[in-house]
Amino acid sequence: MRAAPTQDEVRRQNLGALLRWVHLHGATSRAELTSLLGLNRSTIGALTADLAAARLVAEDTPKGLRRAGRPSLVVRPQSASVYAYAVSIEVDRLRAARVGLGGVVLDRRELPRPRGVQILETVAPLAGFVREMHRRVPAGAIYVGGGVSVAGMVRREDGLVRLSPHIGWVDEPIGIALAAELGGDQPMTVGNHADVAALAEHARGAAAGCDNVLYLYGDVGIGGGIIAGGRRVTGHGGYGGEVGHMVVNPHGKPCGCGSRGCWETEIGEAALLTAAGRAGATGRDAILAVVDAAERGDTTARNALRQVGDWLGFGVANLVNIFNPEAVLFGGTLRDVYLAAAAHVRSRLNEMALPATREHVRLRTPALGDDATLIGAAELAFERLLADPLDAAGSPVPPPR
Amino acid sequence: MRAAPTQDEVRRQNLGALLRWVHLHGATSRAELTSLLGLNRSTIGALTADLAAARLVAEDTPKGLRRAGRPSLVVRPQSASVYAYAVSIEVDRLRAARVGLGGVVLDRRELPRPRGVQILETVAPLAGFVREMHRRVPAGAIYVGGGVSVAGMVRREDGLVRLSPHIGWVDEPIGIALAAELGGDQPMTVGNHADVAALAEHARGAAAGCDNVLYLYGDVGIGGGIIAGGRRVTGHGGYGGEVGHMVVNPHGKPCGCGSRGCWETEIGEAALLTAAGRAGATGRDAILAVVDAAERGDTTARNALRQVGDWLGFGVANLVNIFNPEAVLFGGTLRDVYLAAAAHVRSRLNEMALPATREHVRLRTPALGDDATLIGAAELAFERLLADPLDAAGSPVPPPR
Repeated sequence: MRAAPTQDEVRRQNLGALLRWVHLHGATSRAELTSLLGLNRSTIGALTADLAAARLVAEDTPKGLRRAGRPSLVVRPQSASVYAYAVSIEVDRLRAARVGLGGVVLDRRELPRPRGVQILETVAPLAGFVREMHRRVPAGAIYVGGGVSVAGMVRREDGLVRLSPHIGWVDEPIGIALAAELGGDQPMTVGNHADVAALAEHARGAAAGCDNVLYLYGDVGIGGGIIAGGRRVTGHGGYGGEVGHMVVNPHGKPCGCGSRGCWETEIGEAALLTAAGRAGATGRDAILAVVDAAERGDTTARNALRQVGDWLGFGVANLVNIFNPEAVLFGGTLRDVYLAAAAHVRSRLNEMALPATREHVRLRTPALGDDATLIGAAELAFERLLADPLDAAGSPVPPPR
Repeated sequence: MRAAPTQDEVRRQNLGALLRWVHLHGATSRAELTSLLGLNRSTIGALTADLAAARLVAEDTPKGLRRAGRPSLVVRPQSASVYAYAVSIEVDRLRAARVGLGGVVLDRRELPRPRGVQILETVAPLAGFVREMHRRVPAGAIYVGGGVSVAGMVRREDGLVRLSPHIGWVDEPIGIALAAELGGDQPMTVGNHADVAALAEHARGAAAGCDNVLYLYGDVGIGGGIIAGGRRVTGHGGYGGEVGHMVVNPHGKPCGCGSRGCWETEIGEAALLTAAGRAGATGRDAILAVVDAAERGDTTARNALRQVGDWLGFGVANLVNIFNPEAVLFGGTLRDVYLAAAAHVRSRLNEMALPATREHVRLRTPALGDDATLIGAAELAFERLLADPLDAAGSPVPPPR
């Protein structure tokens, strides 16, 4: 039950709305901003001046325009000098990036991660990446915070990783541990892979402009990032979207979670590799090898992809009936599986989902590819800036030492 | 990307926030409103005066208080004279009510509905109910609109009932048909039973104060109303929440929707009655007879309830993994099934859902009982008033003739 905002809050909201627009859509003329935000010209001028004084945006004369009259100035985000650190902890690799306002990856580092590596062993190399990248940051740049994407269940309240069965973690405070290792006070904001990838694809990827989106992320397990009515669905504690543990086959195989026949037992890494006669193999390269073999006519590989594609479509149909989305995106290794089995996925969806819930749904691969988790992790950090641009820019989080 | 509100919008939002508060929470003192809405005393005074002048609220001196000083006036909604009409079209009955601001049922009518009755046959008796109730409305009362709750898939855009398999309708414009029969220009707002019941229980029932709620509604089929992050999840076209067509048993029975093993084939009316050896019986009384028989020790009835309770818990576990809700409510005939099989439901949930997604979930029966669909349908109509109180009160929708 919120009352309307006060004058101060109005200014903050307007500054945030303008900065968010150029963050998501890039350089935009003052004239367009006036119409897009429904504010008058002088207000847009004043807001832009404030954001420019805080070095969050810059104004340019548009290039190449030779019309009569004074051209409307173009407002663009200061992508090179306003930045966040983003970390992505995956089953098989560790990645870190410096991401500029506007979602631009300015620098990046990557390391393979042998399965079974524990939390303390990831903090040191990740912090090392951040320190390395930090040496190349231009003087006067503004650090807005850090975000971490992890394949696990993350408590919204404090970013604790409650459970990441495939990474092997239980109750790990990775955001706090990383910040401590870097000498910062502010913990890094932590999110689940599928959630942050959904956020990124919704903000600036294949689901831009869609208000109802399912992002399915596959590695060893299966995660789901859900956008409904334009907002993330994360549930009471932050653990929503565990679609990989929706039981699709009551007589199916035991799942690591203690249940049986979970969706990930039918479409996860092990399911495909076992069906393809490659039990024991792991990792994305092994998945790609099955896809390759199928393309070359290997019957076992084809059958394996058909079987997994059927189950993939089965679960998608259930979720489409529940969410009535505009777009379903297949990320991580599910991208490759989906592309190789799209006809089976679509056919199952058409058989099983109600005509009304599936009529406008588009099945798609992500536009940001593997960068989605990095860009999404950075979005978590940019949220603070966008909520109150001048305050966040005026008291930037101390950069890592 | 909305900019902050203008002065006019601020006033409208504040009027709406105050009116919504007393609509949901009843009589509240000015002093409490000042602190709850974060506005100063003079603003609250001015807003209250405007709403009182529009005859939407009244102010009283609180009774029974004998403290020193001037007591803070109490603001209460004008429940007796600001009202909506609500209609609930159920498989076995037709209901209509006049509902006052604050969610008070002021008058009601009910009629059994033989299965198979077509749309034209429901419009006339429902409009008759409204006309009957309208004769008893006090002079000068303010009509804000009408809402319809129906067990079917409703297109958000215009309230068209796309499909109601158990009522037997396809593409029926019930909101427009009812308004036309009543001689009004404004169509009645239409919503799905489970959605509007969830809205009502979230607003003023068993899920008040919970931001993440699943409401499961059973009659012949099974519907779901979902609240996530405090807002309804209805999907792109309005068809979300079709949890009854989540496939739980790939080798199960064919479903009326064309798929197989849908949740409602395992927990719907026919599933329970068939398992209890009463195939062919229909309706809530038949369900209650099974529950009764089980309580009296009938083994067939007990086994039937155990079996259906198992499948009920199975589907709830899937949905808890997807939504991480605080509350799951069992409405319609699922209320009786849940109460008779609560231990099986909980046990399945504990076996199948991840500890983090289920740790804070409460399984509950609705607080508003069968009134939830009527009160929820009225909420659909009150939305217009709450969005812009003075405009809606100043140009009330013409009451039915």
